[in-house]
Amino acid sequence: MARIVMKFGGTSVADLDRIRRVAALVAAEHANGNEVAVVVSAMSGETNRLVGFVDDLSADSNAGGEIDDEYDAIVASGEQVTSGLLSIALRRRGVKARSWQGWQIPLQTDGAHASARIKGIETLAFNQSLKDGVVGVVAGFQGISPQGRVSTLGRGGSDTSAVALAVALKADRCDIYTDVDGVYTTDPRIVPEARRLGRIAFEEMLELASQGAKVLQTRSVELAMNNNLPIRVLTSFKDVDEDNPGTLVCSEESFKGDKIMEERVVSGVAYSRDEAQISLLRLNDIPGVVARVCGAMSEANISVDMIVQGTSRREDSANLVFTIGRRDLDKTLAALEANKEKIGFDGLLVNDKVSKVSVVGIGMRSHAGVAHTMFSALAERNINIEVIATSEIKISVLIDADMTELAVRALHSAFELGVSLGNSKGNSMGDSTGDSKGDN
Amino acid sequence: MARIVMKFGGTSVADLDRIRRVAALVAAEHANGNEVAVVVSAMSGETNRLVGFVDDLSADSNAGGEIDDEYDAIVASGEQVTSGLLSIALRRRGVKARSWQGWQIPLQTDGAHASARIKGIETLAFNQSLKDGVVGVVAGFQGISPQGRVSTLGRGGSDTSAVALAVALKADRCDIYTDVDGVYTTDPRIVPEARRLGRIAFEEMLELASQGAKVLQTRSVELAMNNNLPIRVLTSFKDVDEDNPGTLVCSEESFKGDKIMEERVVSGVAYSRDEAQISLLRLNDIPGVVARVCGAMSEANISVDMIVQGTSRREDSANLVFTIGRRDLDKTLAALEANKEKIGFDGLLVNDKVSKVSVVGIGMRSHAGVAHTMFSALAERNINIEVIATSEIKISVLIDADMTELAVRALHSAFELGVSLGNSKGNSMGDSTGDSKGDN
Repeated sequence: MARIVMKFGGTSVADLDRIRRVAALVAAEHANGNEVAVVVSAMSGETNRLVGFVDDLSADSNAGGEIDDEYDAIVASGEQVTSGLLSIALRRRGVKARSWQGWQIPLQTDGAHASARIKGIETLAFNQSLKDGVVGVVAGFQGISPQGRVSTLGRGGSDTSAVALAVALKADRCDIYTDVDGVYTTDPRIVPEARRLGRIAFEEMLELASQGAKVLQTRSVELAMNNNLPIRVLTSFKDVDEDNPGTLVCSEESFKGDKIMEERVVSGVAYSRDEAQISLLRLNDIPGVVARVCGAMSEANISVDMIVQGTSRREDSANLVFTIGRRDLDKTLAALEANKEKIGFDGLLVNDKVSKVSVVGIGMRSHAGVAHTMFSALAERNINIEVIATSEIKISVLIDADMTELAVRALHSAFELGVSLGNSKGNSMGDSTGDSKGDN
Repeated sequence: MARIVMKFGGTSVADLDRIRRVAALVAAEHANGNEVAVVVSAMSGETNRLVGFVDDLSADSNAGGEIDDEYDAIVASGEQVTSGLLSIALRRRGVKARSWQGWQIPLQTDGAHASARIKGIETLAFNQSLKDGVVGVVAGFQGISPQGRVSTLGRGGSDTSAVALAVALKADRCDIYTDVDGVYTTDPRIVPEARRLGRIAFEEMLELASQGAKVLQTRSVELAMNNNLPIRVLTSFKDVDEDNPGTLVCSEESFKGDKIMEERVVSGVAYSRDEAQISLLRLNDIPGVVARVCGAMSEANISVDMIVQGTSRREDSANLVFTIGRRDLDKTLAALEANKEKIGFDGLLVNDKVSKVSVVGIGMRSHAGVAHTMFSALAERNINIEVIATSEIKISVLIDADMTELAVRALHSAFELGVSLGNSKGNSMGDSTGDSKGDN
């Protein structure tokens, strides 16, 4: 007997027939004598419908301040509906089941509405219910704030609900069912030869998720890594068997003795089109300028991604270039304008026609030459690099958005990530329309 | 300063523009310095959509037993969404507001899922919030069971939520906004001359609601009567002023000195098409048969309405005739079959082409001749009466369903309930599509 957490994204529960299919998958795990907890997203499209209502009303005026608490109360309803429906579908198969909303478990959050973090999960009642043979169907994406309000974990948060629940329940496995059958070397819609990975290390998955791959929410990978909880990424659209084993996201140590894995230098190529590049010109006080910019951004709750400081080629004084999420562009420009004197710059350029392309692999640590291979491959295609950012297991470049596909294909080929044999297709990398993007 | 509970039905919050209109009505009461609690239904059609999901899944099989707990978890989400949206709309008008779900107040129920009764309302936190000038926007129709599950009060239950909240909060007024502008002498779609009543006694409203008028949920009227809480029935589609005063539902004592009221013998004519008539034939043991039938029905959780025992004209032995809600017909036949020997009958007739038409008025108590007027009016139109049931302030007859409109018009005219002058139209009586039918 094992204890298993299964998570199903919005496309897996998009309609009643798919919910019936999910019930069959859950029933099979239960019939094997396992204790099963399930985490569900809202039915595909439902969260967008509800967010649309909120956006429409919010546009009326700026009066009344924050509304994130009400946003949460509204949007969390989508997952509640799915958890109830899946419970009914399970009972109709003769499987004992009940739904759990975030406040019922309770899953406690810090109360930062619309982007809450999990503080703790009370498992007493839930555990007992599992031990009684009842499948626990949990509404993902939501918890309860210290003030007793519904709080949500941000878009894609159901992945994080599932991993946090698996950790709290000391589950043996956490299976994340989505609309792709695993983690791919890159987005197969751009590179048809993209290959599904059998395994990937937490660190690699974290970098890939951070750099644009949408298959798992970044926070969920972080949480799994910190607790050494293996995650399996699978599709609910096929039966799970040797033809559909999914991808195991696990610790590097699990790779030991796995020769093929050890030879792999780069595991995947990710890309993100959601970038904007800001250049600050004619800085009049170089020392401390990065701190001052980051301070202004942080006050406005904006994440700065890549950042590079250098001497301008065209002007007399130094420049600072950094990137932000494109959705934060207006907020960023307002924050820079408000802090213009404090930061000390005299001009500003915006480029929102940029993409970030990254290669990721834990093999980079011990293999030299990855950067050389990468920059050569891009140079051969005449792709200009605007900004470079590196970590121990990742190199990212900012390039002209029109060059995105060309760059991804060049890098996938340069690192020999593809396969020649026919392979089932997914769309796990890049800003695809995968589960984690459209739902919670 | 007064304390006011305002309730808005599904058609009043059917879309975002109507929610904005409701926000304006609430803001006006708040701007007058009142403490305001609001109870909302789900957006029109939303409850039916969710119930449709449940019915679809339920039809798969009979395995797994009861699902009412999950039905409640699913269907209650509709009210949750509306309460959040109205809170945002109020804030955007500069009015402090927050949403409350049933479990947050908490509104405690007995846990009879899908038809729960209210056991108590904890008002400490809610009261404080009202005193702080915050409009409390309550998701109607729902509460929390002793087991900590979401439980709903049955279709139309938001009326009961509103009245119960008004009683618990010691509110000065409870205004029920719906899609009709008050309580009418009968359904204006059948009788164009139907007149809006300025006032109606609790007892009359209770009888009218029980006999088919859908303007208020029966339980809400009962609760208001027991606590002597006046209810005003209004429409949200017009401004509230002397042209739109609605109907006040209040105690008979409030009528004292009101000459016009005292002269009124019959207040309204209600009808219901949701009836089915069962005749048990060749009963072999008359004494105690009513008790045996009622016992069997009660065990199957079926309400018996009219009941009459008599000698058959066609057969040698006695008959028993009773009526039930048509939706319970299958359940009833199964219960009768299972108890055939115990009850002791040898044949059974079903007629589901029947309607119940009722005249209601507190004036009946002191005026003779109502029955005579009623039966004469029906006889003149050759309308056969199958069953008669009476109370102190009501006479109901069961007739051929095809005769419904003819009977309603005949009785409305016989008791001179109409007006000749032009009048705004509603549809408050009869099994109309009023608010209380399609939502919660």
